[in-house]
Amino acid sequence: MRDLVDIGMGRTARRAYGLDEVEIVPSRRTRSSKDVSTAWQIDAYRFDIPLITHPTDAIVSPATAVAIGQQGGLGVINAEGLWARHADVDKVLDRLLAAEDDDVSLSELVGVLQELHAAPIQVDLLSEAVRHVRDSGVTVAARVSPQHAAELTPALLAAGVELLIVQGTIISAEHVSRESTGEPLNLKSFIAELDVPVIAGGVHDYRTAMHLMRTGAAGVIVGYGNSAGVTTTDSALGIGTPMATAIVDAAAARRDYLDETGGRYVHVIADGDVYTSGDIAKSIACGADAVMLGAPLAAAAESPGKGLYWTASAAHPSLPRSGVLAVADRDGVDLQTLLFGPTSDPDGMVNLFGALRRAMAKAGYSDLKEFQKVGLTVRS
Amino acid sequence: MRDLVDIGMGRTARRAYGLDEVEIVPSRRTRSSKDVSTAWQIDAYRFDIPLITHPTDAIVSPATAVAIGQQGGLGVINAEGLWARHADVDKVLDRLLAAEDDDVSLSELVGVLQELHAAPIQVDLLSEAVRHVRDSGVTVAARVSPQHAAELTPALLAAGVELLIVQGTIISAEHVSRESTGEPLNLKSFIAELDVPVIAGGVHDYRTAMHLMRTGAAGVIVGYGNSAGVTTTDSALGIGTPMATAIVDAAAARRDYLDETGGRYVHVIADGDVYTSGDIAKSIACGADAVMLGAPLAAAAESPGKGLYWTASAAHPSLPRSGVLAVADRDGVDLQTLLFGPTSDPDGMVNLFGALRRAMAKAGYSDLKEFQKVGLTVRS
Amino acid sequence: MRDLVDIGMGRTARRAYGLDEVEIVPSRRTRSSKDVSTAWQIDAYRFDIPLITHPTDAIVSPATAVAIGQQGGLGVINAEGLWARHADVDKVLDRLLAAEDDDVSLSELVGVLQELHAAPIQVDLLSEAVRHVRDSGVTVAARVSPQHAAELTPALLAAGVELLIVQGTIISAEHVSRESTGEPLNLKSFIAELDVPVIAGGVHDYRTAMHLMRTGAAGVIVGYGNSAGVTTTDSALGIGTPMATAIVDAAAARRDYLDETGGRYVHVIADGDVYTSGDIAKSIACGADAVMLGAPLAAAAESPGKGLYWTASAAHPSLPRSGVLAVADRDGVDLQTLLFGPTSDPDGMVNLFGALRRAMAKAGYSDLKEFQKVGLTVRS
Amino acid sequence: MRDLVDIGMGRTARRAYGLDEVEIVPSRRTRSSKDVSTAWQIDAYRFDIPLITHPTDAIVSPATAVAIGQQGGLGVINAEGLWARHADVDKVLDRLLAAEDDDVSLSELVGVLQELHAAPIQVDLLSEAVRHVRDSGVTVAARVSPQHAAELTPALLAAGVELLIVQGTIISAEHVSRESTGEPLNLKSFIAELDVPVIAGGVHDYRTAMHLMRTGAAGVIVGYGNSAGVTTTDSALGIGTPMATAIVDAAAARRDYLDETGGRYVHVIADGDVYTSGDIAKSIACGADAVMLGAPLAAAAESPGKGLYWTASAAHPSLPRSGVLAVADRDGVDLQTLLFGPTSDPDGMVNLFGALRRAMAKAGYSDLKEFQKVGLTVRS
Repeated sequence: MRDLVDIGMGRTARRAYGLDEVEIVPSRRTRSSKDVSTAWQIDAYRFDIPLITHPTDAIVSPATAVAIGQQGGLGVINAEGLWARHADVDKVLDRLLAAEDDDVSLSELVGVLQELHAAPIQVDLLSEAVRHVRDSGVTVAARVSPQHAAELTPALLAAGVELLIVQGTIISAEHVSRESTGEPLNLKSFIAELDVPVIAGGVHDYRTAMHLMRTGAAGVIVGYGNSAGVTTTDSALGIGTPMATAIVDAAAARRDYLDETGGRYVHVIADGDVYTSGDIAKSIACGADAVMLGAPLAAAAESPGKGLYWTASAAHPSLPRSGVLAVADRDGVDLQTLLFGPTSDPDGMVNLFGALRRAMAKAGYSDLKEFQKVGLTVRS
Repeated sequence: MRDLVDIGMGRTARRAYGLDEVEIVPSRRTRSSKDVSTAWQIDAYRFDIPLITHPTDAIVSPATAVAIGQQGGLGVINAEGLWARHADVDKVLDRLLAAEDDDVSLSELVGVLQELHAAPIQVDLLSEAVRHVRDSGVTVAARVSPQHAAELTPALLAAGVELLIVQGTIISAEHVSRESTGEPLNLKSFIAELDVPVIAGGVHDYRTAMHLMRTGAAGVIVGYGNSAGVTTTDSALGIGTPMATAIVDAAAARRDYLDETGGRYVHVIADGDVYTSGDIAKSIACGADAVMLGAPLAAAAESPGKGLYWTASAAHPSLPRSGVLAVADRDGVDLQTLLFGPTSDPDGMVNLFGALRRAMAKAGYSDLKEFQKVGLTVRS
Repeated sequence: MRDLVDIGMGRTARRAYGLDEVEIVPSRRTRSSKDVSTAWQIDAYRFDIPLITHPTDAIVSPATAVAIGQQGGLGVINAEGLWARHADVDKVLDRLLAAEDDDVSLSELVGVLQELHAAPIQVDLLSEAVRHVRDSGVTVAARVSPQHAAELTPALLAAGVELLIVQGTIISAEHVSRESTGEPLNLKSFIAELDVPVIAGGVHDYRTAMHLMRTGAAGVIVGYGNSAGVTTTDSALGIGTPMATAIVDAAAARRDYLDETGGRYVHVIADGDVYTSGDIAKSIACGADAVMLGAPLAAAAESPGKGLYWTASAAHPSLPRSGVLAVADRDGVDLQTLLFGPTSDPDGMVNLFGALRRAMAKAGYSDLKEFQKVGLTVRS
Repeated sequence: MRDLVDIGMGRTARRAYGLDEVEIVPSRRTRSSKDVSTAWQIDAYRFDIPLITHPTDAIVSPATAVAIGQQGGLGVINAEGLWARHADVDKVLDRLLAAEDDDVSLSELVGVLQELHAAPIQVDLLSEAVRHVRDSGVTVAARVSPQHAAELTPALLAAGVELLIVQGTIISAEHVSRESTGEPLNLKSFIAELDVPVIAGGVHDYRTAMHLMRTGAAGVIVGYGNSAGVTTTDSALGIGTPMATAIVDAAAARRDYLDETGGRYVHVIADGDVYTSGDIAKSIACGADAVMLGAPLAAAAESPGKGLYWTASAAHPSLPRSGVLAVADRDGVDLQTLLFGPTSDPDGMVNLFGALRRAMAKAGYSDLKEFQKVGLTVRS
């Protein structure tokens, strides 16, 4: 079926699919889970599992960034979040948890976050957070927005950041500036001047993915951390991102850019609509090299949000595009069990990467790169 | 994909899409919200935001028409509504609110509206309402039905109406009259004799839109104010209007009529299925020049319905096609915040036009006319 | 889009549409409701509205058959229902209503119906029921199953039946008989020997419709009275009937048979998925000449079921395919209002044929036959 | 419509359909239920109804295997289930029922099953269970997983198993072994050495079905016993199986393999998404020779689970992919009524094979093999 649809006279739209519309079809010989590798490497950094955390304070504190690194993934500190603005974040988060206990409205919870983010970023707090991760020996990563990338990056590098994530809801290689004051970020020159690899996003289509790859980024993030019931970019801006199609398109850009450059491989990192281990498998199956995991990690006992989940855009001062939602029990399960089991929970919420390994084994693939070619069906 | 579907042997139907099935794809360089204009001009009248109110008493009193005008939009008085029939509308609306407090059935609430509309239209009351708006200095607009256009228009013009809205659920350029008594409205001659611009509708397809453009209308309304849970034209008459397709088709008529006339540009105004700021952005993205906003404005503290919403067709004496529904809190948010924020509500219900501006910025467009070309995806 | 779908390798299925997937598009000049005729004539019998009742005791007693006739429709007595088996049906139905009051399970309510239908058919009771209708002067119709048609028809004709409905869930022109005892009904010879016109069904596709037309039937019923939450033929037998496609296909058979015979017009009567006045309009728009109305009539104060609804297949002794469901208030609205309004109910449940007339007017058609050509959109 | 869909640039997915999306279209002459045969024969074993039980302890004890055999179907003992691990299974199941009474969480119920399955398999218990069935004179079948097939089969054969079911969630003809210890099952040589026919599965596509047919299996199972609300393979692994397409594809493999071998007919057994008698009919209509029935049998009074249902994968020690769900009343209906009626339940849950017979009769087919060609419609 052609992927262009006439939605009316003289206007076409792209037919796009979500992860919930696709399913993996095992059609090769099965193999043992023990013979499967979920290892992932970007630039000089190698990870046991293809996991980057979505940079929200709900799931990543300096301590959890360390814990995730120790489990084989990559925790990302939000350089513009609470740890950069408040000295005692635990006490600050207690305000949010207390508000939730009082059963206040969604709007009030978001209001608390807005207020907490009105405090200024303090470079020393931020540096301390980064150093905490660095001192543990795991790979150190932090996220900045395109708006504050230039301003915050020097301190981050000084504190030991090894991988820089430049991430907004929607990013473009070169922001258009006409009358606005201030110099917008030129990603290409920004990246060229850095010594550390940059992962940038989110992008939502082939063209923007390709532009971003040409900036020199080591990885491109697809999606904006879309999470049903939490993020509201679709309601607020009319911008949604059916992730199966978005990942496939970014993977096409990766392939074309690889050809164009004669061998530069830019990683595609899927950031959206992942709720279960099955969704992780589907993201890789659609062509992602790794997944940026958000809400599922809120179930970890170690997560600062204690079961509450929100994304960074909840804190926008005038137009928040994320709510605050209880997506898991407040006590949670320990991170290692959440990632690798064992579990008696059959819903794909625990043993997230053990399940990925098993899905690959049942489909007959032994590494992530091969698994990107597994057969798919689509419903609806 | 072709847009004609064989629904059975020898019968085709047009495949049509709702706004909820399309989404905007940002695929250009982003820009700053500050560099974006949401200005809209029809005939000699310029507006800061592409907003016309759906002409229902639930959201427009003479006072709110003024307030909306002051915020940069166009408030439309329903010349056949309560302000034209009752001297003390506040007291009259209290009956409706009291009935709702008593938790009466939907059918009883509609019955109250039917009864309130059984009172005759009093030209002096109507003139007073219009003059109230005119005296404020904002653009003055009123809506008449095709049935009463000829009868009411002289008084409206005398009272100072600058833009006339001729609007029914479904309108046609020339009503067929055979045996019925009374002379039906011939829109073309009606418009030709007027000195003020006319916006007419609703239409639901290319052909009717084109016919209406040829009557000399300055703008054509697409849809009938369809509002889920409120309007019931589909259940009652089998007539529904998937708005994405309807807007695209009317925009095609606009383009063809522009060519046919060598330059007359007739505005397309979308009136239906807008619940959030994202839907406003999608309406423009499908080709609308402006949106007629209904239910979302019921959340304004200034709205006469105090959170209740209904459309004019609720008052039909024998076959109402709108219910009365509480769509917002009774206290509401002030109009300026509703339109421009700031807000801590992430659901796209507040900061409606600030969000439009941001959607345009993220997609890289600087004015509404350009934004009509933004890329779209379609699901389902 | 082609209407055949590959559901797997080497197997196609017909893509079929329900009434809820289609909508009427007004694309002509509007006209006044007063200039519209909803008249329908089959054989020598003329009706003001295209209404036949589904032959279930829930909505048709001899008294309601008279009332429906007086309102311009055709009431059909079920010759194998309660009035043919019990002398005092009101008392018998009280058992059902009392059981429902006791909040018994669905299965128990069906059990009561099964038990009530275990009583034998008494020809004198049946004749009395038919004579009651005949004596009122309205057109007299009764329904027999294919199994009992030969046995019951003589008494029905003797009692004054003018239109005979031969109706089962699925009917075929010639039942295959191999080893079973008893002679199955040969519809063609059966009809040839009768002096009254026969309406037969239900059919679900073009081929069976065509076969049935060739038996000499005056009308063919499409569907099996499918009613969501009530009939369960789909769950029980895997047989469902998307009505938009089924009606279109039967209308194609009508056209082809008209050509084949050089002018014999066999009426297509839609019997399924009609819940609102909008669905009546859509049924005609898809090509039906009349609708067989079931559940919506349960809202009539005159209906024997007092708001409960079931179809005849609820009484099957070993495999019932209809539940018993409360689809309307027990007190109901009077039949005339239900059919012609006025109403303050906006949901398309009251003023059923006033709404049909208005839908036709808004779409610009003046009679039912023309309205079968109105434009349609399809969603999904 | 082509069955390949572009889900993004350069990536196609197979468009696949579930049983709930297809419906049977009767388009031939009807016939009497009495003239219909539902008989099914595989290898030397003949059954009155095309029923194999899904091998879960929730529905099959040695006693129910006998009862099902006596009713004309094939009960399958799970050789790795509770009867192979515990001497007094009734008492063991009481723990599960008691836990459910205490309203414990899903996860706790699964935990109980995991714990019960941690007990070792005892060959003497297993042999005793098999002998119990053999002594009754009905056909004796047991299921082993591919992992334990080699180990358990000798004892099963010695105890009298006549049909061996080798079944895992996903099976392949030859498991890939690289570094893992232990010799994986080579189905082809395993089957070649056996004297009893083997039914193997599940498979999910044409290719795996074809490979499995080439191993010498007498029957191939399609699906993994997918049961909404119970099995979670889709959430956990991203692997779902739209059954209509999966059955059609396996039937295509059966046809091609028949041609390739010049006459070896391998049976296709559908194991998934069957909830009602209508689903049984649809499974056969899509091309299945028999259905493997799970959840619907939980309603039998004789079922060990007393209305609770789970599949064998609930007991996986680290990644369970089935919950434990109450799908029926604890008292249930007797097996004979469940299979053959009569019933007053109209929902297709009782009289499962009486309904199949009736569906075949109404569609005009007299045996299962013919019924595989009945016409289908597809919705969505």
